Amino acid sequence: MNDHFSVVGKKVARIDAIDKVTGGAKYAPDLNIRGMLCGALVRSPHPHAKVVSIDATRARSLPGFRAMVTIEELPRVVGYWFLLRSEKKEKDMFLRDNVVRFIGDPVAAVAAEDEETALRAASMIEVTYEPLPSILDPYDALERKDVKIHEKGNTAFHVTKHFGNVEQGFKKADHVVENRFVTSKQKHAPLEPIGTCIADYDAAGKLTVHTSTQLPNWSQIYLARALGLPNNKVRIIKPYTGGAFGGRCGLIHGLEVMCSCLSRKAGKPVRMSFSRSEDFIGTETRHPMTIDIKTGVTKEGILTAISIKILANVGAYSTHTVGVLADCLSTGVGLYRCGNVSFDATAVYTNQSLTGAFRGYGNPQLNFAQESQMDIIARDLGMDPVELRLKNYRGLGEIDPIFVDEIRSDGLRECLSKATEAFGWKGRGSKRRAEGAKKKGVGMAIMLHGTGAAGALPDPASATVMISSDGSVQLVTAASDEGQGNRTALAQIAAEELGVRFDQISVSMPDTDVTPLDGGTHGSRQTYAGGLAAKQAAADAKRKLLAFAAKQLGTSEDDLGIKEGVIFNVGNPSVCVKIGDLMRRVQIGDMSICQQIIGISSGVAPAMPGYYGATFVEVEVDTETGEVRVGKLVGAFDVGKAINPANIEGQITGGAVMGIGWALTEELLLSEGRILNDSFRDYRILRACDVGELIPIIVESHEPTGPFGAKGVGEGTMVGVAPAIASAIYDAIGVRMKELCITPEKILEALDRERGAKNS
Amino acid sequence: MNDHFSVVGKKVARIDAIDKVTGGAKYAPDLNIRGMLCGALVRSPHPHAKVVSIDATRARSLPGFRAMVTIEELPRVVGYWFLLRSEKKEKDMFLRDNVVRFIGDPVAAVAAEDEETALRAASMIEVTYEPLPSILDPYDALERKDVKIHEKGNTAFHVTKHFGNVEQGFKKADHVVENRFVTSKQKHAPLEPIGTCIADYDAAGKLTVHTSTQLPNWSQIYLARALGLPNNKVRIIKPYTGGAFGGRCGLIHGLEVMCSCLSRKAGKPVRMSFSRSEDFIGTETRHPMTIDIKTGVTKEGILTAISIKILANVGAYSTHTVGVLADCLSTGVGLYRCGNVSFDATAVYTNQSLTGAFRGYGNPQLNFAQESQMDIIARDLGMDPVELRLKNYRGLGEIDPIFVDEIRSDGLRECLSKATEAFGWKGRGSKRRAEGAKKKGVGMAIMLHGTGAAGALPDPASATVMISSDGSVQLVTAASDEGQGNRTALAQIAAEELGVRFDQISVSMPDTDVTPLDGGTHGSRQTYAGGLAAKQAAADAKRKLLAFAAKQLGTSEDDLGIKEGVIFNVGNPSVCVKIGDLMRRVQIGDMSICQQIIGISSGVAPAMPGYYGATFVEVEVDTETGEVRVGKLVGAFDVGKAINPANIEGQITGGAVMGIGWALTEELLLSEGRILNDSFRDYRILRACDVGELIPIIVESHEPTGPFGAKGVGEGTMVGVAPAIASAIYDAIGVRMKELCITPEKILEALDRERGAKNS
Repeated sequence: MNDHFSVVGKKVARIDAIDKVTGGAKYAPDLNIRGMLCGALVRSPHPHAKVVSIDATRARSLPGFRAMVTIEELPRVVGYWFLLRSEKKEKDMFLRDNVVRFIGDPVAAVAAEDEETALRAASMIEVTYEPLPSILDPYDALERKDVKIHEKGNTAFHVTKHFGNVEQGFKKADHVVENRFVTSKQKHAPLEPIGTCIADYDAAGKLTVHTSTQLPNWSQIYLARALGLPNNKVRIIKPYTGGAFGGRCGLIHGLEVMCSCLSRKAGKPVRMSFSRSEDFIGTETRHPMTIDIKTGVTKEGILTAISIKILANVGAYSTHTVGVLADCLSTGVGLYRCGNVSFDATAVYTNQSLTGAFRGYGNPQLNFAQESQMDIIARDLGMDPVELRLKNYRGLGEIDPIFVDEIRSDGLRECLSKATEAFGWKGRGSKRRAEGAKKKGVGMAIMLHGTGAAGALPDPASATVMISSDGSVQLVTAASDEGQGNRTALAQIAAEELGVRFDQISVSMPDTDVTPLDGGTHGSRQTYAGGLAAKQAAADAKRKLLAFAAKQLGTSEDDLGIKEGVIFNVGNPSVCVKIGDLMRRVQIGDMSICQQIIGISSGVAPAMPGYYGATFVEVEVDTETGEVRVGKLVGAFDVGKAINPANIEGQITGGAVMGIGWALTEELLLSEGRILNDSFRDYRILRACDVGELIPIIVESHEPTGPFGAKGVGEGTMVGVAPAIASAIYDAIGVRMKELCITPEKILEALDRERGAKNS
Repeated sequence: MNDHFSVVGKKVARIDAIDKVTGGAKYAPDLNIRGMLCGALVRSPHPHAKVVSIDATRARSLPGFRAMVTIEELPRVVGYWFLLRSEKKEKDMFLRDNVVRFIGDPVAAVAAEDEETALRAASMIEVTYEPLPSILDPYDALERKDVKIHEKGNTAFHVTKHFGNVEQGFKKADHVVENRFVTSKQKHAPLEPIGTCIADYDAAGKLTVHTSTQLPNWSQIYLARALGLPNNKVRIIKPYTGGAFGGRCGLIHGLEVMCSCLSRKAGKPVRMSFSRSEDFIGTETRHPMTIDIKTGVTKEGILTAISIKILANVGAYSTHTVGVLADCLSTGVGLYRCGNVSFDATAVYTNQSLTGAFRGYGNPQLNFAQESQMDIIARDLGMDPVELRLKNYRGLGEIDPIFVDEIRSDGLRECLSKATEAFGWKGRGSKRRAEGAKKKGVGMAIMLHGTGAAGALPDPASATVMISSDGSVQLVTAASDEGQGNRTALAQIAAEELGVRFDQISVSMPDTDVTPLDGGTHGSRQTYAGGLAAKQAAADAKRKLLAFAAKQLGTSEDDLGIKEGVIFNVGNPSVCVKIGDLMRRVQIGDMSICQQIIGISSGVAPAMPGYYGATFVEVEVDTETGEVRVGKLVGAFDVGKAINPANIEGQITGGAVMGIGWALTEELLLSEGRILNDSFRDYRILRACDVGELIPIIVESHEPTGPFGAKGVGEGTMVGVAPAIASAIYDAIGVRMKELCITPEKILEALDRERGAKNS
C-alpha cells in the first residue's frame, strides 16, 4: 500500500525540528513586547474561604505598581466547549463570586513594571478571608450537606446509563468478580510550565493574546464572552509549545482573563507566567476516581454483565468533567462487546485543585479498573489474558452503542499478534519463579480510544492552501502543535494530495485573525480531522490547478496527475508542466489572469473512529524495597495509516513513559488540601534511565473515513500501561495492586498483608 | 444613489484611528525581537568608484561586533515587478558588481549588539576605492561615452511612440507653442523614514522580514530570488507605516537584502533603521525630467499635434523608470484627445541618488509641462483655460489609445463646474491689478490618472472573508495601508456586500504566510482592485451564508437579503435570522455541520479606469522677496464612488499640500553629487501654517467596473497642483515659471529678466 505514496508514510523530519534543536523556536515565555508589564497572582492560602476584603493600599504605593484586578470583577471560565452550544448553558461557563475553593485559587492579579515588583506587590496585597469549612475527600463531599463548595451543592455531575439487563447478565454468569480501583491525581507536567500568556488590550478595544492554548478558536470565544467582546476583537496567537497533554485544553484558570483585564486597566501589554510551583498547584490535573466494577463472565470467558460505579474527585472547579466521564463509558467500557452494562458516575467538588482534560480523558482510569479486572478473570478462569480479550473486544463491523456508529477499521488482532511476537509472550512467566528478592513478572492490557469528538462535541476543522508563483505551497490552519508534530503530518497530507514535494510546503501557526476555524488539538484528532481539512483544501487547490494545467497542456483535467510538483498527462507523461512554471504564468506572466490558487475546506469529520492498542510489560519487583522497575515494554497501536511513522513511534514511546509514570510515580500528594510535591524534584516524571526497553509497533488498518486511511493515536498510547504493570506485578509477586500510584510503600504493605494472611 | 448603502459612502472612523492617535500602533521602528542585533550601513563617499578592498579587521575587533556583509557577496535589486514576468528579464533585476554609483550607495553592512556599536563598527571599516569619473548632469550622461555608469552604458531606457502624423498635425495648426519644462528631484519624505526592517533568518532557513513595504508579495518574491530561497521560505510582515508615497514600492536599496544576509550570518534577528539623513540621501526620489513640448492648436482651440521629448535623470539605479515613463505617455499625454502625438523619452543614469516610484509616477512631470503649455495657449488664444480643457480632454465613451480601452466613467465636467463655482473662477483676475508689491493671481489645471495597473503589469488582488460564530467578520487581505486608510475602505466594501455593520468587521495586516496574493498598494489601486477582491470574497461568503439561511428559514436563497447583520426574507422581513445566531448553529450548535464560512476571491481587476481631477489655485506673489503663497486651493476629483468621503478629502488635502511643496519648496539640492538638504530643517515640506484654505470636492461618476462604482484617487490629487500654481504666478506677475521648484530666487531672477527685457 505504501509504495504509491510520495510523502505520506515517510519519516520526514519535523517542520519545526531545526528551529527547536537550535533554540530558535520561540515559546510563550520567550516572547517580549515593547513596553510590556509583568503580572503576578495573589493566590488563596485557604482551601475554602470567602474573600471579605482586598486591600491594595500598600501594594499601590510600591514604585512600579501599575494595575490590579480581583475575582470580584472577573468571571472565572469553568466550563468546556460543549457549553457553547446554547446560550443558557453558555452562562454556566462563567462563574462570578468571591469564594476561593482551593489552596492556590487566584484572588487577585497585579501588574507592575518588572517581575520582581509584581511579585512583591502581590505579596503586599492584604486579603481578608472568612475561612469556610472545607471538604477534601470525595465521599465527604457526597455525604456532607453542611458544606456547599458551589451554590448548587457538591455534585458537579451525575450520569447513569444502562444497556441490556445487568441483573439477568449476572445471573447468566458462571463467575462474578467485584473490585474497587482507585486512581491518582496526575499532573500533566510538560517541560514548559502551563500558564504563560501576554495580553495586549489596545486602545481601540482589540485584545491580542499570545497563549499556548490547545484550542485557539474556543479560547478566543471563551475570552470574548468573558470580557464582553465580539469574537473578532479577540485575537489568539499561539507560539511554539513545550508539551500540553490536555493541560492547555481551554483557558488556564486565572491566566488569560486576569491578564487581559490587567492589560485593559494598565493600557499596556501584560505578561503573566506561572512558576513551576504554580503549574503544579494552580492548573488542572487528571480526575482521580474510585471505580467499583463488577464483572460477570461465563466459564468460556464470555462477558455477560458489567456494572460500574464511579466517584470522581473534580476538585474545586469542573471544566471537562462531563466529557471525561462520558469517555469512561464510551471508550472505557465500550471496549468490550458485553450487552448488559450498568454505568453510574458521580463527580463531586472538593477543595482540592481543579481537574480537567488529560491525555486519555477518562479512559485511563476506567481502563485501569477494567483491564485489571480482565486479568483477574483470566487468572481465575486459567485463560490466556490475550485470548480473553480476543473473545470479548468489540471489533470490525460491530456497532458502537454510545455513538451508534459502525467500527470500520480494527487492527487489534494484528496489534496483539505482533506485540506477543515482539514481547515473547508465549514464553512468559518463565522467570517469575526466580529465587531471590527480585521477582519478574509480565502483564498486558488492551485499549480502545476515540479519534476526535465529531458528533459528541462541536468539532470543526478548516484549512486553506495557497500556492505561490514558484509552486511552493502554504498550508494555513489553526491546528495547534504542542510538540506532537501534527503540523508536519498535516503538511505531509496536503503535499501528498496536491502532489508536491514535502520541502515545497510550509504550515502557518495558529492566529485567529487569519487562520480558519479549528476545534483545537484534543482527542487525538489533528492528523484525522485536521488532516481531512488539509486534504480537502489541497484537493480543492488541485482541482483549480488542474483546470489551468488542462488549458495550458491542451488536455482534459481528468487525464492529468501531479507528482513532486510536476503536472503531467497520465497517458503521456512527457506532456507536462511544473506547478511553479504554471503558477508563474497564472499569477505573474499572463496579466489577464493574475490569480492565486486558494483551496479551502471547513467542516466536521464524518466519524469519531476508535483506534486500538495493546501494551505488554515486564516488571521486576524488589520484594525487599518494594521498588518496581519496568524492564521491557511493547506498545502496538492501530493508527489506520501511519502518516509519519517517526511521530507515531514518538507518541508510543512517550505515552509508555507517561503511563509508567502514572502507574508508579506521578501523583500529586496533598495534606489538608495543600499540594506537597510542587516541583520536579518531588513530583517524579520518569527519565530515560528510569525505563527499560520500549518497543513501538505500528499497525495499519485503513480507516475509510480518514485522510489516506489515518486515525488517531496520541492519547491511547498511555491508556493500557498502568493495568499491564499492575498485572505484571501480580504475575511477579502474587499481589494485586488496585490503587495508583503503585509506590514501594504500597508494595511492601501489600506483601506484608499477603504474608500476614498466609501466616494467619 | 447613496441612500441604499449602509456602510459605503459613510465617513466611518478609520479602523486604525484609535490605535494611531493613542500611540498604540506599532510601526517598524517600534518593533523589538528578543536577541535582536542592530545593523548599520557603510555608504560610499564617492559619486562613482570601484571598491578595491574592504578591510574589516579593526571593526571585527570591536566588542559587540557580530557580522558583516558586502556588496561583493550580494545582489542589488534594481528592477521592478514588470521584470518578474520572464526569467530572462528577471535576471536584470539583480545586479552584482563592486561599483558604487552615488554618494551614499551601500558598500557593506555590519551587525552589532547595539546601534552605537554598529555605527562605530561601520565607521571602522576601511574601504579602498578607486574613484571613477562621475556624471551628474543627464545631458552629459547622454553625450559622454568615456564614462559608463552601468556596463550597458548610460541609457537606462529609451522609448518612442507615435500616433497619427505629427508633421501634418502641426501643419493644420493655427498656432504652435514650444517650451522646455524642468522638474525637480522631490523626496517622498514621509514622517516615518523610509528604511526600517527586522530580518530574522532562522536556523531552518526560513526568513521572516518585518518591513514597511507597499508590495508585500512582490517584496517576498524579490527577496526570495535575491537570496535563492523558495517564496514560502520568505515571510514578509508589514507593520503600521507612517507614509510611503511610492517610496516603499519594492525593496529598499541596501536594506532588506543586506539585513537578511546579516541575520543569516549572525544567526540572530537584525534590525536596520535608516536615519532621516539616510532616508534623504540613500532612498529613491522622483525622476527629475527635462521636457520639451511642442503643441499645435487651431484658432478655435482644438489640439492638432503634440510632440514631446523627455530626458529623465534616473540617478544611479533604475527601478521604476519604465513604468514612470510609460505613465508620462498614458495618463500624461493621454489626457487629451489629440490624434497626432509624437513621444520620445530617454532615461539616463547619472551619479546621483537613485529614483523610483513616487505619487503620480511620471504623470506630475508631464502634467506640469502640458498643463503649463495649455495655459500659455489659452492666453495666446484669449480663451478661458477651462474652456480650452473642455474642448480637448478625452472623456466618456472615447478610447484610450495606450490601453485601447473605453472610458466608462468621466466626472471631469462636474469637477470643473463645482470647482469653478467653489473657487469663484468667474470673477477671477479682479485682484491681479492690485497696487503694491504683493500681486495675486489665479490658475488651474486638470489631470487624468489611471487606477491600478491591470493589463500593464501583473496586478493581482485577493481576499478571504471568514465569518465567526457570533457573526463578526474577519477580512483577510495583504492590502497594505501606508496611512491612506485603504484597510478601512476595504472593510466598508466587504461589510456592505455582506450586509453586516461596519463595527462587525475587522481587517488583517499583510503577512505573506497567511494573507493571499496581492499586487500591493500602488497606482491608486487598493480601493478599486483590493476593493473588488474584498467585494467578491464577501459575495462568495454571502452565497454560502444564504444557502444555510434558506434552509433554516425554509425559503429560497433568492428571496433573502442581509442588512446590518440580519438575514431576512425580502418579501416578508419578519422571517429573519441574525447572522450570529445562524453561524453559532452552523459552527457550534449543529454538530453535524461545524463549518466556518470562508469566502475567497483572487484575480485581476477588469480595467485600469482613469480618474479625473481639476485644481484651482490663487497665489500671492511678493515681488520684492519673490515669495509665493498659495491662498486658496480647490481640488475637485472624480472618484467614481466615494467609499469613505473622509479618506478622500484627506487624500485631496494631502495631495494639494504635497503638490504645493513640489511646486515651491521640495527639491533635493546637490553639489558634486552630494545631497545638501538631508533634514527636515533644510528640505521644506509644508506645514499647515504654510498653506491657505484647501477645499476638497468629491465628484462621483460611477465606474461600472469598480466596487460599488469606485475608482482611484490617491495619486492624482497632487498631479495638477504645480502647473496651476505656475499659471497663477503668471497671472499675478506676468512671468512664466517653467522650472521647478519655483523658489523666491527664481521668481526674482525672472522678474529681473522681465524688467530687463522691457527696459532694453
